[in-house]
Amino acid sequence: MEDFIFYNPTKILFGREQLNNLAKEIKKYGSKVLLAYGGGSIKKNGIYDNVVRVLREEDIEFFELSGIEPNPRVDSAREGAKIIKENGIDFVLAVGGGSVVDCSKLIVAAAKTDADAWDIVIKKHKVREALPLGVVLTLSATGSEMDAGSVITNLETREKLDWGSALVRPKFSILNPEHTYSVNKWHTAAGVADIMSHTMENYFTTYDDCYLQDSFAEGILKTCVKYAKDAIEDPQNYEARANLMWSNTWAINGLLESGKDTDWSVHAMEHELSAYYDITHGVGLAILTPRWLEHVLNENTKSKVARFAKEVFAIDGEDEMEVAKKGITALHDFFVGLGIPMTLREVGIDDEHLKEMAENTIKHVGGPIDGFQQLNVEDVLEIYKKSL
Amino acid sequence: MEDFIFYNPTKILFGREQLNNLAKEIKKYGSKVLLAYGGGSIKKNGIYDNVVRVLREEDIEFFELSGIEPNPRVDSAREGAKIIKENGIDFVLAVGGGSVVDCSKLIVAAAKTDADAWDIVIKKHKVREALPLGVVLTLSATGSEMDAGSVITNLETREKLDWGSALVRPKFSILNPEHTYSVNKWHTAAGVADIMSHTMENYFTTYDDCYLQDSFAEGILKTCVKYAKDAIEDPQNYEARANLMWSNTWAINGLLESGKDTDWSVHAMEHELSAYYDITHGVGLAILTPRWLEHVLNENTKSKVARFAKEVFAIDGEDEMEVAKKGITALHDFFVGLGIPMTLREVGIDDEHLKEMAENTIKHVGGPIDGFQQLNVEDVLEIYKKSL
Repeated sequence: MEDFIFYNPTKILFGREQLNNLAKEIKKYGSKVLLAYGGGSIKKNGIYDNVVRVLREEDIEFFELSGIEPNPRVDSAREGAKIIKENGIDFVLAVGGGSVVDCSKLIVAAAKTDADAWDIVIKKHKVREALPLGVVLTLSATGSEMDAGSVITNLETREKLDWGSALVRPKFSILNPEHTYSVNKWHTAAGVADIMSHTMENYFTTYDDCYLQDSFAEGILKTCVKYAKDAIEDPQNYEARANLMWSNTWAINGLLESGKDTDWSVHAMEHELSAYYDITHGVGLAILTPRWLEHVLNENTKSKVARFAKEVFAIDGEDEMEVAKKGITALHDFFVGLGIPMTLREVGIDDEHLKEMAENTIKHVGGPIDGFQQLNVEDVLEIYKKSL
Repeated sequence: MEDFIFYNPTKILFGREQLNNLAKEIKKYGSKVLLAYGGGSIKKNGIYDNVVRVLREEDIEFFELSGIEPNPRVDSAREGAKIIKENGIDFVLAVGGGSVVDCSKLIVAAAKTDADAWDIVIKKHKVREALPLGVVLTLSATGSEMDAGSVITNLETREKLDWGSALVRPKFSILNPEHTYSVNKWHTAAGVADIMSHTMENYFTTYDDCYLQDSFAEGILKTCVKYAKDAIEDPQNYEARANLMWSNTWAINGLLESGKDTDWSVHAMEHELSAYYDITHGVGLAILTPRWLEHVLNENTKSKVARFAKEVFAIDGEDEMEVAKKGITALHDFFVGLGIPMTLREVGIDDEHLKEMAENTIKHVGGPIDGFQQLNVEDVLEIYKKSL
């Protein structure tokens, strides 16, 4: 176990009635709000109206930035920062899923500098201050509501990159499971795949001495397996939505990775897919993960994969390699059962850019991916090909 | 699942080298320190010298309060507050286990008021401000390093009471598993029992929709079962000490109870034992817990107890009641295996005060204990008698 610091001061307000606390929380930090959201689903499902009513009732002035994309683009962040600077805004409220939150993180940083937003993402400009950020979450997927990270896409450069700063961590996040009732089957399934991928990136490492953290990870994975179908088939199942929402937060807020250096292999590979093809992130992760596990399964890794199979899918057996293989199959079949298309061709990706994307994966990581198993360009290419 | 707020801004610095960050952390909050500790074990094991060296190297002036008792007494808190007021101290550093931390929480609150420290505990005086508190933890047991609660004993009134305030939550806690290497078998075992009891108080409730939280709880319980003997038999086993230390923190920092109203039945009953007899808290909990579970096991509760048996002790079977009973026996035998005396008589408690303590349990809770199963005075008395 490596030395580590766990410090996560985001305040989580969880449950049906928490929007009642929104104005009180905002007023701790600001008085003039940028309300940032996505393609308009919050207008259809009533969340927009509820948020706006709270702001108006409490006389909180607000401006709007709408249309933030899935796989949010740097252009939206530039636009948000511009609105803030032009109007003297002092607080950003992100209402949406991880894309809106991630874009808002870049907005709050870009609003406090003359540097271009993309320079923040590529670490050319170091974040020294940021506006305060609050979140009303409407999708269980990225965990961005309680972490300091963000993923931004630049379609011009075909890059989708991680960046982060403690300064952009949300001050508070309102998590009402009912806000995810209108999430369709596709995004519910993709969200579950995203949660599970975050958990597995933290779980499948070379560390065999972080038993507690790995047990927590298994708890999240079991919760996803237990409730995913319920949420898809019965979208207003509060218990299912609530368990998935709370899992989503804990998959990536620092707890599971405590004591480990993690490598995030699958995310590195998936980011290239989304950057080139703008596919749904969680679907890309679901497609790649079983093929990655197959690729890295060997005498060194079989115990951990077998533990995963046993704890998450209740697969018993004497031979660890056999149990591990059955676990990988179970994971694949679980995603199939959620209606996720489990090949790249089904989501419109052929072999045209595979080599380029494999090279970019390694380039963006800064060398071979070192972790559960080392991956170089050839490994990534092989995993892509297996996923076609 | 009930609505809840999760907000825990204590910064945890975990690992072998974290004392190197002590001065930097203190200087964020203060410059004149009260160093609070217990009976002197930190002088024997070298932790005192290491802490004092850091303070001296960084020119941080400090005063000392030593001799804080296990089951810390209100008198020690009064003394600490007096030293602070006389010397213009602006920061308290607790070096020790949960008793030292709990007492220090009362000290930081009492230092900022003219009210008597006991009035804070009995909620006659409301805490409105407190000095900042930092912790160097030397025992894995109470989880006090990342929560806002404290338990204080008043031997005059024979009361041992909980109180808490967000204002006394530690700003930071340094958790170096090596600092627990010198903890003897007795206190290691009692600490494990304490961690497990906190977890079980959060786990055994009437809520069957908090699957994630319960899975996390099982992760902590499994970790305790896996590592307790290792830590006792091989005290310098870093992996065991680290897993227990990190379990200790998460058992009671708000995560496991999120979404639930919990009742803390066993703690309520144990507090009377410690108040009357000054026994080791964790040992009291270990003795009472299996008898409490036996007492409350019925058709309504058997599923949860059976789940516990299956997940924590890998007990399989068709009949939930049978599995549940085996789980309770396994828990009892596990504590026996740690060398814990599993009857009240062995720790010097006979039937003299049982009735009085049962009455006080219910009195201090403010009526029957409502939770996993309702307990009134007769129930508590019966559980005490079963534990004799």
